[in-house]
This record gives sequence, structure tokens and C-alpha cells, in this order.
Amino acid sequence: MIKQLAVLGSTGSIGRQTLEVVRALPHRFRIVALAGGKNIDLLGRQINEFKPRFVCCQDRKALARLTDAEYEFLTPEDIARHPEVDTVVIATSGRAGLSPTLAAVKAGKNVALANKESLVMAGEIITDEVRLNKSRILPIDSEHSAIWQCLNGEPQAVAQLILTASGGPFLHFSPAQLSEVTIEQALRHPSWQMGKKVTIDSAALMNKGLEVIEAHWLFDMPFENIEVFIHPQSIIHSMVEFIDGSIKAQLSYPDMRIPIQYALSYPERLLNPQLPRLNWDSIDNLTFEQPDLDTFPCLKLAIEAGRQGGTYPAVLCAADEVAVELALSHRIKFIDIAHVVGRALEQHRFIPRPTLEEIMAADTWAREKVRQLDVGD
Amino acid sequence: MIKQLAVLGSTGSIGRQTLEVVRALPHRFRIVALAGGKNIDLLGRQINEFKPRFVCCQDRKALARLTDAEYEFLTPEDIARHPEVDTVVIATSGRAGLSPTLAAVKAGKNVALANKESLVMAGEIITDEVRLNKSRILPIDSEHSAIWQCLNGEPQAVAQLILTASGGPFLHFSPAQLSEVTIEQALRHPSWQMGKKVTIDSAALMNKGLEVIEAHWLFDMPFENIEVFIHPQSIIHSMVEFIDGSIKAQLSYPDMRIPIQYALSYPERLLNPQLPRLNWDSIDNLTFEQPDLDTFPCLKLAIEAGRQGGTYPAVLCAADEVAVELALSHRIKFIDIAHVVGRALEQHRFIPRPTLEEIMAADTWAREKVRQLDVGD
Repeated sequence: MIKQLAVLGSTGSIGRQTLEVVRALPHRFRIVALAGGKNIDLLGRQINEFKPRFVCCQDRKALARLTDAEYEFLTPEDIARHPEVDTVVIATSGRAGLSPTLAAVKAGKNVALANKESLVMAGEIITDEVRLNKSRILPIDSEHSAIWQCLNGEPQAVAQLILTASGGPFLHFSPAQLSEVTIEQALRHPSWQMGKKVTIDSAALMNKGLEVIEAHWLFDMPFENIEVFIHPQSIIHSMVEFIDGSIKAQLSYPDMRIPIQYALSYPERLLNPQLPRLNWDSIDNLTFEQPDLDTFPCLKLAIEAGRQGGTYPAVLCAADEVAVELALSHRIKFIDIAHVVGRALEQHRFIPRPTLEEIMAADTWAREKVRQLDVGD
Repeated sequence: MIKQLAVLGSTGSIGRQTLEVVRALPHRFRIVALAGGKNIDLLGRQINEFKPRFVCCQDRKALARLTDAEYEFLTPEDIARHPEVDTVVIATSGRAGLSPTLAAVKAGKNVALANKESLVMAGEIITDEVRLNKSRILPIDSEHSAIWQCLNGEPQAVAQLILTASGGPFLHFSPAQLSEVTIEQALRHPSWQMGKKVTIDSAALMNKGLEVIEAHWLFDMPFENIEVFIHPQSIIHSMVEFIDGSIKAQLSYPDMRIPIQYALSYPERLLNPQLPRLNWDSIDNLTFEQPDLDTFPCLKLAIEAGRQGGTYPAVLCAADEVAVELALSHRIKFIDIAHVVGRALEQHRFIPRPTLEEIMAADTWAREKVRQLDVGD
């Protein structure tokens, strides 16, 4: 049985690693659709190699010059709901992931989800549609994959979810030290190779906050039963504590191909000699500590936005996306990301059970707000 | 639904902890039978508290003076196969556990197994009978419980089982240091509270060797796919590595009530406020290292006996049981346990696919052999 895959965001970090998994297991997976962003050269090479039937790309002419295969252009949403697609990999980052995620869910697809923003912004709407359309979300984030694996066979009787966080490059920094760091330092993650946005979010612990909100929706778990621990070695990717005091954990080297492949192969596991096996002689020790919520306020902001629900998580997400862009282009400092996001949340006019339109409006409002905060305020 | 339990070996360490679990969850478990050894006082108190219908005890008169409840005397085997019993807890230590384990398995019972010797001595016979009679073995050993929990929902696609071992009180001892240790030092286990036999076996790593053989039979796993790592903190109780490089682990404080309760409640998990929840602030670090097979030859002896199969594991088990007795009564030194067991294995006349009678004969031969080795040789 060969699974037919669509990869949205194929030129990003998760997209490329998804294609590595497919390349290693050609008897199990076939690429029927690819959607890429600005990196046309890479998208062209991917098309020439994997020969998808459907492609999404903004610059069609440039792409045509680079490719020698036959394919049809579709929108991301049309790819996501296409009858020939079994599993849609949503590797698009940011708000752009939401619309194809919803399309795939409404079409009852298996949705291998790496995009955080969809569930953070519209968790209730998406999970309602998942139930309604018998769709399934297969998490790709290493933390949610770990929890999902630990819940395999026994989704009930959970006392709490324990998300682990590496702590990023600024673990144990004082507030004074943190106020001095540059965005280049923030981009040097100690254990994970990731895209820029998620690397910055990781350094600020914002990423962990978004993951708490995702975990809430993915596993239908109250926020008070989701814990975060710093585990700098990034070997235990997350854990589930059951009501009898027993804890299950999932471990591996930090390599995204492992959770990606699990999402694609689920409910099976497949032998892939390219995936690293943990060498225990390389493990000195595994440590755990409480996160420092005062020095890294983004984690607290995110959990609070998640608890409040409604439009707050969309504002959080949008404000953070713009704040990280501003930081990457040196318009604000790394430390300012938290201030700017906090400010947007404070000034937002909350809607408790928003429609999709209201969520998108809150998103747009937050983006503008952060750009204004940048200018003056 | 109340499960009807028989506890064989109720006055030992596992038996007492089983009754603690039952005491905490009286709406889920009822004791219908108790079998105790020499500690008549304790057995009498247990009978007065739990009011079992069936009792096994060697000194009936003494017991009658201590108890005020009505009960019937049965043999351990008759208890193990009694129609009123749902789950038989085999907490008897040593060879005495084999016969009631077989009786329970042949009667198609759920067998919550803490006795190591049954599976080590007669793994093939027992697992054949389990299949034939649709019985089920529910492992109580913390390591096997951990593996069993990790396999929940996905028993296939396993690359290897990783058994953890605390390393015992003599971790990092040199051979010269080990030759000096007393049996009293061996009885001071750093992380687990257990009976004397298993504590001594732990200190010699013999216990881990017996567990490797048990794991081979319980999970139908070739010996070359079973690894042992020293993990002195005894928090990760064992792990399963899958073919995709993902590892699942089970964690808790070292408290036998957790695996005991899981075996009793399986496939459910039950809330028991008396069971300790892991406090991550108490976890400094988790470490892993290779066992030192030269200094602790019992582990190597056991794995080799397991690989050879036939009557070797029975000889290993019997020789070890007598050697530990001799060490506990100061007739031989701790370090001699390995020599004596190795000697018995060397001199044994191997039978490749033994009957139960041949296994028992090998056991008897090994016991006599070790007593002779003690005298002279």
C-alpha cells in the first residue's frame, strides 16, 4: 500500500525533511502534490525528482523554466482536498497554514500537521471539523508526536501531559543578560535544526507556549494538566503521566525525520536505516528543571492566552509572527518580542467564541498593532 | 466490576505490597485466597483483615489460633485454578512458584507474575500453555511492566528491549573491592526495597540476567535484541526501541506498588492517591552506562544460559538460589556466588528440549551440586 502525499511548504525545513523520508521509503510513499514558497530553485528540483501531479507556486513562469515534468497548478486548498491525496503534510509556517489545514480537515483527510498557528488560532473550529468529517490530525511537532506515541493504546486515564523544552540558547540567562542578546545569538539553537521563526520562538520559550495551546486542542487536555519542564539535552521529547503515577516518555536524538515519518506511517512504524538510533554511550545525563517564567514571559503570555481562549491565541500568534519578523530585521531587540506581544494582548478587544472571520480579523488587527508599536507607542 | 484475587506468597515483599494496593482500592479488588510461608503471625493478620475464602499454610493449627475468620484450606495449585479466582498473583519466590504458575496458566487465568524462576526455568513450557489455554501473563517485575506498558497499543515493530538496572550497591567496584564485600553490604540496595534473595541477586547483577531470560519469553524477543543498561537512579524502569529509532520508556519512583497495581488493573489504570507521583524537582539527572560484565560475571552467565536454553536456565536458577542461601548464612562470600553458579553450569549435562520432569531433575541436581561445591571441590 503506497500512501499518496501532498506536501504544502515543501521547501521549508519540515518540507525538506519530509521529502528525505519519502526518498528513503519510495515503496511506501508517493508525492502527488508539492507547494513551495519563495525558494523556486529548490521547488523546481523537488518537482524534477518527485514528479508530482499537482503543484502550487506563486511564480509559475519561473518554475516552468526550471522543471521538465508535467504537472497541473492548483491552490493549496484544492491540493489539500484533492481525492488523490491520502495524507496532507502541512509544513507551511505562519497563518498561511490555516486555510489548507481547514480544507484538508473538511475533506476528511489525514492531516500531518507541522503548522502550529492553525491549532493555536482556531483550535476549536478545527477540532470540531475533525470530529464532524472523521478527519485525523497526525502531529509532526516532536513534543506532540511524543505524547501521541505515549498515548497509543491507552488514550484514557491521563493525569497530565509533560512537555519538555530544551530551554534554548539563553537557558539560565538573567533578565539583564537577556536584554543584551542579539537575534543572531537567538538563531543558534543548541539542539534542534529548524526554520528561523521557530528557532527564535524557541529561544523566547514562546514556541513552548504555542505547543501548550496545541496540546490542549490535540489531546483535549485542560491547561492545568499540561506541565512544561526544561530538559536541555532534547532526548526526552515529552511525556504522559497516567492516573496511577506511571509516566511514559518518548526518546530519540533531536531529528525531525523521526516524528515526520511516524506521522506518515501511522499506525505502522517503518524501518528506515537513515534515521539515527540512540547511542546510549553518547548520553551523559538527562536533566530537568522548572522554566523561568519571569525571565521568559512569552511562555506565561501564551499559556494565559490559551486559558482565556477566544481570539486571544490568534492575537498572540499574529503579534508574535510580526514581532519575530521585526526582530529578524533588527527593528526591535530579541527582548522586545515579549513586550510587543504582551502589549497587543492587553489592547485587544476580546471575543470569547469567535467565528473564523473574527479570528482572521483579530489576526489582522494584531499584525497592524505590532507594526504601529514598532513605529511609536 | 470487582476482580477476585488469589495472592500466593502474601507475606513476602510483593505479597504485602499487593495487599496494600487492594486495601486502597476495595471497590475494585477482593481477596479470595491467600497463601503464606513461614510468617504465620502476618498471615493470620492478613486473613483477619481480608477474610479470604481459601488459605494455604503449612502450619494449620498455629494459624487457627491466630484467626477468627472462616476459610477452607487448599493447596497453592488448587487455589491457582479455582473457578472463583480471576487473577492469580504469584508472589512466591524461588522454585515453589513454578507449579502454581503452571496450574493457573493451564486453567486459563490471568497470572500476575512476580516469580522470576517459573519463566526462567520453564519459559517454553509456560508460554506454550499460555497460548494453548488463552491465559495471560501480567508481569509485575518493574522492568517487564515497563516494557509491557511501552508495548501497549503497538506490540510489533520492536527493534530491541532495553532493560535498565540500578547497578546495585557495588556499582563501579573493582574486582578486588568486590572480593571483600560482605553479604550485609549486599543487602543494602540503594534504590529498591525488596526481599533478601532478589536484593542479593541485584547486587550481583544476576537478577538482571534472570530478567533478560524472562523478557525473552514474555515478549518473544531474541536475546540479541535485549540490551541492559545501568541507570543508577532507578527512575526509567525499562524501554522499548522501535524500528524507526523512536524509544518509549516508562518512569516512576522505584515503588513496586505501581507495577503491581498495573498488573491487577490492566487494561485499565486506576487512581490511587497512595501511589507516589514523580516530583521532577527531585530528579537531579538520569544517567546510563554499560554494565561491567567482567566484574559482575553473573549477568553474562545468565544471558549465556538463556541463549543456550534447554536445562541451563534451570541449573542457573537453582544453583543461584542455593548459592545465595549459602552466602546469606555466611558459608560462602558474596563474590563466590558467581563462581559456584558458573561451576554448576560447566558441570551440568545439558538437555536441549527438556520435559518438566527433566527441568525439575536438573534443578535438583544443581542444588546438590552447589551444596557439594560448598563442602569441598
